[in-house]
Amino acid sequence: MYNEKRNLTMLTDLYQLTMMNGYLKHNMDDSEAVFDMFYRPLQNNSVYAVMAGLEQAIEYINNLHFGPEDIEYLRSLNLFDEQFFDYLRSFKFSGDIYAIPEGTPIFPGEPMIRVRAPIMQAQLVETALLNIINHQTLIATKASKVVYAAAGTDVLEFGLRRAQGPDAGIYGARASIIGGCVATSNVYTGQQYALPAKGTHAHSWVMSFPTELDAFRAYAEVYPSSCMLLVDTYNTLKSGVPNAITVFNELKAKGYKPVGIRLDSGDLAYLSKKSRQMLDEAGFPEAKIFVSGDMDEQTIWELRSQGAAIDVWGVGTKMITSDDLPALGGVYKLSAIIKKGVVYPKIKISENPVKMTNPGIKDVYRLYDNATGKAIADYICLSDETIDTTKPMEIFDPQATWKRMTVENFTARPLLKPIFVNGEQVYQSPDLTDIAAYHKEQMNTLWDEYKRLVRPHIYKVDLSQKLYDLKQKLLLEGNCKQQHK
Amino acid sequence: MYNEKRNLTMLTDLYQLTMMNGYLKHNMDDSEAVFDMFYRPLQNNSVYAVMAGLEQAIEYINNLHFGPEDIEYLRSLNLFDEQFFDYLRSFKFSGDIYAIPEGTPIFPGEPMIRVRAPIMQAQLVETALLNIINHQTLIATKASKVVYAAAGTDVLEFGLRRAQGPDAGIYGARASIIGGCVATSNVYTGQQYALPAKGTHAHSWVMSFPTELDAFRAYAEVYPSSCMLLVDTYNTLKSGVPNAITVFNELKAKGYKPVGIRLDSGDLAYLSKKSRQMLDEAGFPEAKIFVSGDMDEQTIWELRSQGAAIDVWGVGTKMITSDDLPALGGVYKLSAIIKKGVVYPKIKISENPVKMTNPGIKDVYRLYDNATGKAIADYICLSDETIDTTKPMEIFDPQATWKRMTVENFTARPLLKPIFVNGEQVYQSPDLTDIAAYHKEQMNTLWDEYKRLVRPHIYKVDLSQKLYDLKQKLLLEGNCKQQHK
Repeated sequence: MYNEKRNLTMLTDLYQLTMMNGYLKHNMDDSEAVFDMFYRPLQNNSVYAVMAGLEQAIEYINNLHFGPEDIEYLRSLNLFDEQFFDYLRSFKFSGDIYAIPEGTPIFPGEPMIRVRAPIMQAQLVETALLNIINHQTLIATKASKVVYAAAGTDVLEFGLRRAQGPDAGIYGARASIIGGCVATSNVYTGQQYALPAKGTHAHSWVMSFPTELDAFRAYAEVYPSSCMLLVDTYNTLKSGVPNAITVFNELKAKGYKPVGIRLDSGDLAYLSKKSRQMLDEAGFPEAKIFVSGDMDEQTIWELRSQGAAIDVWGVGTKMITSDDLPALGGVYKLSAIIKKGVVYPKIKISENPVKMTNPGIKDVYRLYDNATGKAIADYICLSDETIDTTKPMEIFDPQATWKRMTVENFTARPLLKPIFVNGEQVYQSPDLTDIAAYHKEQMNTLWDEYKRLVRPHIYKVDLSQKLYDLKQKLLLEGNCKQQHK
Repeated sequence: MYNEKRNLTMLTDLYQLTMMNGYLKHNMDDSEAVFDMFYRPLQNNSVYAVMAGLEQAIEYINNLHFGPEDIEYLRSLNLFDEQFFDYLRSFKFSGDIYAIPEGTPIFPGEPMIRVRAPIMQAQLVETALLNIINHQTLIATKASKVVYAAAGTDVLEFGLRRAQGPDAGIYGARASIIGGCVATSNVYTGQQYALPAKGTHAHSWVMSFPTELDAFRAYAEVYPSSCMLLVDTYNTLKSGVPNAITVFNELKAKGYKPVGIRLDSGDLAYLSKKSRQMLDEAGFPEAKIFVSGDMDEQTIWELRSQGAAIDVWGVGTKMITSDDLPALGGVYKLSAIIKKGVVYPKIKISENPVKMTNPGIKDVYRLYDNATGKAIADYICLSDETIDTTKPMEIFDPQATWKRMTVENFTARPLLKPIFVNGEQVYQSPDLTDIAAYHKEQMNTLWDEYKRLVRPHIYKVDLSQKLYDLKQKLLLEGNCKQQHK
């Protein structure tokens, strides 16, 4: 099977192509543009997101090319001419892409990806980059919250059947692993990313045999060393658990250790506690209790707080769709035009101060407290600025500039890494398990106050004085002159 | 580019494979199973859904096969043996699939798809069928509601950048067209389904020129006969619309007719009315006003009710993700096992009466009133039942059996069509534009009471007496004996 390097070149909005053609006609194809991808504060309870999707974004860039059938389709639209088709035929991405590595917790407003390329190229890639990164970042973020709520118990990803199409299932499962899930039920993703897929049986298995006990015995016979039984097809406590115990005793007599039971309906706090008691009394204290059925971080948190005896969580629909916020809403905004080596910083004006973009070519640093190892704040500055960590540094809130703090004894780590330089890939994506390990490590640098499910503390994302001043200047100019200086 | 018939055979949950292997080991591979896919009442304000995704489900079935690398991956899981791998190597779907055609409004609980196949085959296809049909049906449904709210004004699909991965964008756009959108910005979908993609320019175009007026002139020069200008980059009424009018006058002088303007921020009721007035006074009463920015059916309805002067709606994030309900939640439930020609109807017991499944091999009919042409109710019966439309027929609510009505002078149309018979495809998907036309026609057979955005009237989905009696019998048996009769 494997994904045969699907060519997603045409996965773009038509206006990218009409603009590209317009730039070509106006001889602007030698202008360079700088775009930042960032996300705005999330309209749910999360102050952080988890960067994901970069590996697929890299594949997308590497596979970019227009084939003859693409040109034919575009010709049929009667919008373009042969000069443009010639350009497309020889299209190759030749720009620079910097990005924050997958698994990194990220915060609103900071550049997740920075593209610097000839303007036509930078424009073309907007839509697919947003699509890929928005999606996987969304699901990795949701998974990270679910895993936080599970507090060390295992979370499995189970959502394929409810995902928004095949890719949402495939890459959603990938993103869930980044966010901390230990496995997925999705065989395609398991194969593609060399992960062990997980799963046992469904209600239909039980219903296909004359009795529930027959079905359990039949399953145990085929999978004696990995026997996990679904106990809620008819009646969990009166039939399912007693029948499972009967079969577990039969397995034990043959020298096998049963894995456990799965509950998929009913009140899971009550049923898990009762089932635990029954399993313990029957001599199976090590049999695990696995639950599934409309789980999310809130439900997991509450079930745990009520002492539910649950060892493993199977999370499907609500994680694979990010049910409470089904779009990250990341944007890709022009921050500079470069003509003949001169950088013209750009800003998008808005009535809403939070929607103003940050102009210029920028870097972003995470500042860590050397005493605790914890992150203090993120700091966005212009690329020609440096940070001197040997001296105290004053930072301030760019919306409320009187809120100031001085940072001392700190480390500044640049978050944006070079991915493509002059069109050549200079970064290799780590294995998925390494990305997941990196995510876990990075989450440990954040105080729990930022991870709270309800009303978490807001993390500081500050601007350098120089960037702040540039932004104010352009806002004033933009409102009266709207033109290049 | 084109989708190279991606093989999605491995797009399944691992437990389908463990169950298949279990059936093989117990020599049950000659048992046939019947499964129904249906959805439960939606947890938002919709009483209907719009069937979609069948064309992709057909492709999936036709492409099913396990390659050597698939077998290798499965071998690495240490769950299966060579007998099973031999079975997989020669796997071919040989069953029957009936489905409701795309574009049909459908209601909770009725079979959208009915699969009858050897049990191992019927089990394998569950996950991908659910994934594909759940997704497209969800988006077609949302689009149908957005289009209803737009009441005859055009809706364009614009959501690719916020869709949950490439497929969600590609097939979400397809589903949006089924639901009534007139075009998409998505070039890939446009190409794949021979649709005209739509789009003009973004804020970045305006920001890439010295002034807004320069940018508008540059655009008009390249696209004089399709000139639509985005007017909100700096200030809509003080700068954007006046600059657009200047350029429209220049176009007019050259004999071209400008298309219109696009508003993407600010209060769209106020700005559209003011812009309309300015355009009319400038002599451009035919210039259209197009809006975009977080639109959904509720916002469109309210803007229209306030007399907003909007001709075209660009709808993105909230439609492509079905923001208020990001999963349809369709399920695939065993309804019968057939052994040596004997049909054993099956039911899944639940504490919740709505979650009880309907047993047996079933058909579903839509009853139309001959006087009005409107749909009266849907009627689920066993496949060996017939409907005599020459006589009055009494139907009843299966949850509240005292609610009865007699239907007279009616037509009964079977909704399930044969798609595969003995593994051979017997149905050809219509063109996307024909599906959209069929959807529009079918929506006209539903009273507006069912389409209301808030608290719509519930549509009747009734069971035949024979099916109802079978269900009651199995419920009683199931609760005490849980076994085949």
